[in-house]
Amino acid sequence: MPTPLSGVYAPVLTPFNRDLQPDAARFIAHCQWLVQQGAGLAIFGTNSEAASLSTGERMALTEQLLAAGVPAARLMPGTGACALTDAVALTRHAVSHGAPGVLVLPPFFFKQPSDDGLFAYYSEIIERVGSEQLAIYLYHIPQLSGAPITLGLIERLLARYPRTVLGAKDSSGDWANAKAMIDRFGGSGFAVFPASESLLAQALAIGGAGCISATVNMNPAGIRALFDGWHSGQGEALQGRANVIRQIFQALPMIPAMKRVLAECTGDAAWRTVRPPLCAMDDAGAAALMSALRDAGFSMPGHPARAVA
Amino acid sequence: MPTPLSGVYAPVLTPFNRDLQPDAARFIAHCQWLVQQGAGLAIFGTNSEAASLSTGERMALTEQLLAAGVPAARLMPGTGACALTDAVALTRHAVSHGAPGVLVLPPFFFKQPSDDGLFAYYSEIIERVGSEQLAIYLYHIPQLSGAPITLGLIERLLARYPRTVLGAKDSSGDWANAKAMIDRFGGSGFAVFPASESLLAQALAIGGAGCISATVNMNPAGIRALFDGWHSGQGEALQGRANVIRQIFQALPMIPAMKRVLAECTGDAAWRTVRPPLCAMDDAGAAALMSALRDAGFSMPGHPARAVA
Repeated sequence: MPTPLSGVYAPVLTPFNRDLQPDAARFIAHCQWLVQQGAGLAIFGTNSEAASLSTGERMALTEQLLAAGVPAARLMPGTGACALTDAVALTRHAVSHGAPGVLVLPPFFFKQPSDDGLFAYYSEIIERVGSEQLAIYLYHIPQLSGAPITLGLIERLLARYPRTVLGAKDSSGDWANAKAMIDRFGGSGFAVFPASESLLAQALAIGGAGCISATVNMNPAGIRALFDGWHSGQGEALQGRANVIRQIFQALPMIPAMKRVLAECTGDAAWRTVRPPLCAMDDAGAAALMSALRDAGFSMPGHPARAVA
Repeated sequence: MPTPLSGVYAPVLTPFNRDLQPDAARFIAHCQWLVQQGAGLAIFGTNSEAASLSTGERMALTEQLLAAGVPAARLMPGTGACALTDAVALTRHAVSHGAPGVLVLPPFFFKQPSDDGLFAYYSEIIERVGSEQLAIYLYHIPQLSGAPITLGLIERLLARYPRTVLGAKDSSGDWANAKAMIDRFGGSGFAVFPASESLLAQALAIGGAGCISATVNMNPAGIRALFDGWHSGQGEALQGRANVIRQIFQALPMIPAMKRVLAECTGDAAWRTVRPPLCAMDDAGAAALMSALRDAGFSMPGHPARAVA
């Protein structure tokens, strides 16, 4: 039986080449850097533009990443999909490749589905994959999915699948909801990950498991230091420094902004590319962003993006 | 160069077997009945649970439908997807199999994308498919997609791709928006389809092309009669009769309700099945629905569902 995960995870940015195809070499280099900085890899999350990737593209990138030597133990792939058959195929693939957890978005076309409908979706995935190695983390992001993971749904899933449903990511941005998830289910080991490091210290203080945050792509070492030291004398200062970087990105379309920063910091312009319907950040926006980051003392030490350019 | 389509289209309900797999035999039988009743086949629309189907499942059903002798000329497959690569693959497949039009949903995970981002999505599909036979119908359903097809976007696409972007479906339910689409673009042949037959006569009166409506699955002959006779002395009576049936379904979760009615009217219980996150209609709801339909004189004459049970 898998054990609940904890730590600091990046929903890993997905690089594309000029033809908008996934760029495995840059993806691998970025993942290796994140792991070196102490982060886990929530590949194929919202900020990975996972919704903009086909199931085949996701599976191919996973296989290329593992073939490059990135340990499966650091992965928490996103495997949710609107089509049950896609979600089953992605989840089965991730588990068979050794992922110790998968982050499963609910189907997100039909809005406000019932708890019965979402229970059926997760239940079908679990039953069809049928593996004792499967560990599911529920993905609550109602502002994009239109399908909230309610406390009642979690309770029903835990009652039926206590060895498989091991946690949740709360991307609602609503601390009261994250706190309610931790208070109600954290005592029995259910691992709750808020989606921003701005909530990390307060989540860890009441039994949260870590965070899965977009800006771990930018500031993995700083956020990992906060995870390790939140209860030390440096905790407040670490939280404050992480917050400064987070706030700069949070005010912007985050995916284009983070990709542009990777391009600027590494000299590898290919990182600017996003898939439609997103649009790359323009030069004026980038200049303002880089200026704000310089003022905050931001850098990406040792990032190998240029090496694969 | 394809010519703009017109008429009455059903977003064809997709039957599933007990294992939740698409049921090609029932799908073909339902499509054949719709065609016999005078309807076109907007397979893989919202009410087809298309979002709940994988790309492979959609392609296989299309091929099975054509192999059964249903004419490609009656098809308007839905080929939009969150992933550009999926949308391109589905569109290419539909065009290569002879579909005279495709209904293309915008990517629907990221909310409120810019017109630039949506222009890029449609442009990439058109350029990559690269066929003079491609005819795109834009799908405006902001309440589910979160990605409105604005008049400004249509204008930009028409300026760049006048031979390929041939129309739109307006599922907003906002008559002012449908009217604005027709008023602004209908004069040059742009084919606008409201999503409900309740707007059919008024849309046709100002140059609309027809309708693509869920309830064409239930009442194809009545809605086709309205399309043919809206300007005759019977027009008002035809619109009124169509409205009665429409209103009964519109008050309910339409997909489970329509599937349950197919099951009840044909004696083929397999039609009740939906994929998660939808839930099948319960017996109490079905009893009330069937009672209302009986009072309205509803029937599905000649539907062959039972023949394939």
